[in-house]
Amino acid sequence: MAFTFQINNDVEFNHNQAFLKKAQQLTPTIQHTKVTPVALVETVKDDHKLNSTGIKKIDAVENLPKHLMKRDDHVTLDFGNHYVGYFKINIQHVGSPQDAPLTLKLKFAEVPAELVYDSADYDGWLSKSWIQEEVIHIDHLPVELKLPRRYAFRYVDLKVIDTSPKWSASFDKAEVTAVSSVTTAQLPKLSDPELQSIYNVSVKTLQDCMQTVFEDGPKRDQRLWLGDLRLQALANYATFHNDDLVKRCLYLFAGMTAKDGRIPANVFTNGEPQPDDTFLLDYGLFFTSTLNDYVVETNDISTLRELYPVAKKQILVALHSIKDGHYQFYDNYPVFVDWSNDFDKTTAGQAILIYTFKQFVSLAQRLNETEDIQKISAVIKQLSESAIHDLFDSQQQLFVSGPDKEVNIASQVWMVLAQVVTGSQAATVMQTAKQKLFPITGIATPYMYHHITEAFFCAGLKDDGIELLKNYWVKMIKLGADTYWEAFEPEDPDYSPYGSPIVSSYCHAWGCTPAYLIKKYLVN
Amino acid sequence: MAFTFQINNDVEFNHNQAFLKKAQQLTPTIQHTKVTPVALVETVKDDHKLNSTGIKKIDAVENLPKHLMKRDDHVTLDFGNHYVGYFKINIQHVGSPQDAPLTLKLKFAEVPAELVYDSADYDGWLSKSWIQEEVIHIDHLPVELKLPRRYAFRYVDLKVIDTSPKWSASFDKAEVTAVSSVTTAQLPKLSDPELQSIYNVSVKTLQDCMQTVFEDGPKRDQRLWLGDLRLQALANYATFHNDDLVKRCLYLFAGMTAKDGRIPANVFTNGEPQPDDTFLLDYGLFFTSTLNDYVVETNDISTLRELYPVAKKQILVALHSIKDGHYQFYDNYPVFVDWSNDFDKTTAGQAILIYTFKQFVSLAQRLNETEDIQKISAVIKQLSESAIHDLFDSQQQLFVSGPDKEVNIASQVWMVLAQVVTGSQAATVMQTAKQKLFPITGIATPYMYHHITEAFFCAGLKDDGIELLKNYWVKMIKLGADTYWEAFEPEDPDYSPYGSPIVSSYCHAWGCTPAYLIKKYLVN
Repeated sequence: MAFTFQINNDVEFNHNQAFLKKAQQLTPTIQHTKVTPVALVETVKDDHKLNSTGIKKIDAVENLPKHLMKRDDHVTLDFGNHYVGYFKINIQHVGSPQDAPLTLKLKFAEVPAELVYDSADYDGWLSKSWIQEEVIHIDHLPVELKLPRRYAFRYVDLKVIDTSPKWSASFDKAEVTAVSSVTTAQLPKLSDPELQSIYNVSVKTLQDCMQTVFEDGPKRDQRLWLGDLRLQALANYATFHNDDLVKRCLYLFAGMTAKDGRIPANVFTNGEPQPDDTFLLDYGLFFTSTLNDYVVETNDISTLRELYPVAKKQILVALHSIKDGHYQFYDNYPVFVDWSNDFDKTTAGQAILIYTFKQFVSLAQRLNETEDIQKISAVIKQLSESAIHDLFDSQQQLFVSGPDKEVNIASQVWMVLAQVVTGSQAATVMQTAKQKLFPITGIATPYMYHHITEAFFCAGLKDDGIELLKNYWVKMIKLGADTYWEAFEPEDPDYSPYGSPIVSSYCHAWGCTPAYLIKKYLVN
Repeated sequence: MAFTFQINNDVEFNHNQAFLKKAQQLTPTIQHTKVTPVALVETVKDDHKLNSTGIKKIDAVENLPKHLMKRDDHVTLDFGNHYVGYFKINIQHVGSPQDAPLTLKLKFAEVPAELVYDSADYDGWLSKSWIQEEVIHIDHLPVELKLPRRYAFRYVDLKVIDTSPKWSASFDKAEVTAVSSVTTAQLPKLSDPELQSIYNVSVKTLQDCMQTVFEDGPKRDQRLWLGDLRLQALANYATFHNDDLVKRCLYLFAGMTAKDGRIPANVFTNGEPQPDDTFLLDYGLFFTSTLNDYVVETNDISTLRELYPVAKKQILVALHSIKDGHYQFYDNYPVFVDWSNDFDKTTAGQAILIYTFKQFVSLAQRLNETEDIQKISAVIKQLSESAIHDLFDSQQQLFVSGPDKEVNIASQVWMVLAQVVTGSQAATVMQTAKQKLFPITGIATPYMYHHITEAFFCAGLKDDGIELLKNYWVKMIKLGADTYWEAFEPEDPDYSPYGSPIVSSYCHAWGCTPAYLIKKYLVN
């Protein structure tokens, strides 16, 4: 499994100031919540937890000041749940006058596994700069230490690098000011306790990712990705219903398109908004999906009217990826589908074109854009027919992909979601896929698992959907998840795409969709 | 050689608010000087330099921005001389948008030897917190990075821990705002070029230690020690003549005495002034020396009148260390004499009593304190006579110390400085000492070497004094000193009392005395 960085730093961008101003005006007020730790803990070996690392309470948090700490002493605070926010703590010295600075290492960890990993040992390809660790010198004690950076964590390890032989450091009043653009929703009561916990953790995941934009992960990369936004927006309609945040994000993407009209796969919003130089065909097309979902929820036609040309542009650009009636994969504007590059993506890509083109037609219908409706409907028809004709193996009752006619899960799932097959035929495809391709291997993203699960529901296979919800998301909870992870491979629970838990994101947007799935397919 | 930490944190202190207010009012205005680097350098093996580490220029500093730096790249800035101050630098990113923080390690080094030493390898007894190293995360580039802490350095090593695979960091406009309470003196021209360079480096050493107090070392411990103050004040009268800074420091010590009247060996002045819980008999007595030297320079009788009782108290306390007409070493109030604890200190201690008591009598005479004059003069007479009678070995023409009648350099030096022997007898003692005890071994402090050198001059042995000046201080310069070091053992040039150069102080107050010695004994 590999993720390839795109470097296209010669691409020039449009900056639509009117759109960006609208985005700016929609910046949410961040809600602050003070949270104090619930216990002092230490890590323990626990084979039932992620990376075989669990935690054990060692003392009440009230006793923290009694832990007089010198060189190499450390203590771990447990805040009881995952939070995104700003950390502060009071530190004083005990003993002789402070004859040297205090040097303190602070490690912020979303999961216990991060605490046992030495950052010096990390040599993965992903930037070390994401490691949530600070080493600071404090020249004057006592101090109320307020760290200026935001962290995503449940645990904080305080390690004294050194005091001096003449005094110890004593800590007190640890606190996180947790931030989000939303406060906890009143969660609905579900009759199935497993579904209830799946639901609750997904809501927490979504909440912690909802900052001034929908971030992909508050630990890392803290960024607005279109592929994540689409799913977060759906989960948001099912829970917090902060529609303005979706609108803001749509305007951010629409406000920064490349000169050729393509929407970048993500934008940076820490500081002045800035587009990334990464382009993914499916992510660009999901602008249309996200806009359509937004309009369905809000009926906000004036926003649709403004953003329609941007959505249309993505569709028109995507037409260049169609050759001989089929989607064709181009390296310079690839479809993502999933992190894994170990399967053929052309059939899934074709389905995603159909899926998003249908949503575009739905938008065009609202605006009575007759010409667009006719043109794109014709393309949908062509792509759907060629899919059935050339890509559906009626003997296997499965879609095949690429020159080797590879059968993979993504093709089936997206053809079902795109409603190229429907009704009993969709059910047959998904049942056959389950029979032949389960248990799934080589897929590490909740993003792909979400689409598989939703495809079951779309195909009317409710029980299979519930089973997968439980097999995937409950498994994370059992391994210790307070929020859903960026990457989880059930067949290899400790898998990290970066070779280390310290740069993995354990609260990641694309894991938050159970709230949406449960509300849409299982409640009522 | 060992230095023992005193821990007396049960000692209670007086706070004389009137004295402390006076000290506060005398706080000097700190002078700021902007300095830019002169070259980009790298360390090279050079057996003629400290720890066999020299430097080599690798590029012009103007080319710094062209060094595009990614994970593990580093560059070293050379500011051309030692400075104490605040560092800033501009940083931008080059390439794709900044998709991760920049993590940067900055090492500040007074000497090249520090640059090749990995701080992770340091495990000495002295606090690691003094290591001048910062690891910082920068979330938003470009930035004008201004570090809030003060450092003492000539070299700054910038090491990129990581950027991301998509961009590099580029640095520009490095600058130090150098601070001191004095600006460079117009240095006198000396005919001997070696003496000139000895002189110049001692003035730079003094300047960099002159901050809001006379610090012992601006890298470490940044603190006002009485033993250092006495020497710095003498060098200051020979150069900058900032008499108010001496006065301020006298009031700081006088303002914070223990309940039993003793002056602490040092005080902390970062933040609210605070006395340390370390007590050294000779340092306490040097309050009298420093006050006497100050009055001789300034004729400031009103300050003398205010501080005389504090000086007198030190003398009275010291009387308790006299038993059977001799100074006796007590562990709970030891004499320091030198870092080394490998020699018997009683004879040197007795001489220091005589030396400082004489200065006290001189002060008492200015105030016509007849009773004090008589009382202490009698003690001086007794101590001097017992020294000659019991401690002077007329056969060897040397003073002996302790029950084993040990002959050490400190005894001779201090008996000469205390003028227990004078004229040709002093010359004989010092010549004999040179014959028998040179080359000196086991003494690592410029503090002790200063007293040996001055004893030569006091004994009229000018050439021997010059020879030692050159043998000791020029040797440091040849090894690469821009300022004189806390510790230097000529027979073992790489010796560090801490086992590592990274916590050694290479600009240290008690090395600054050549300016005083040259002015007093060699100019005119």
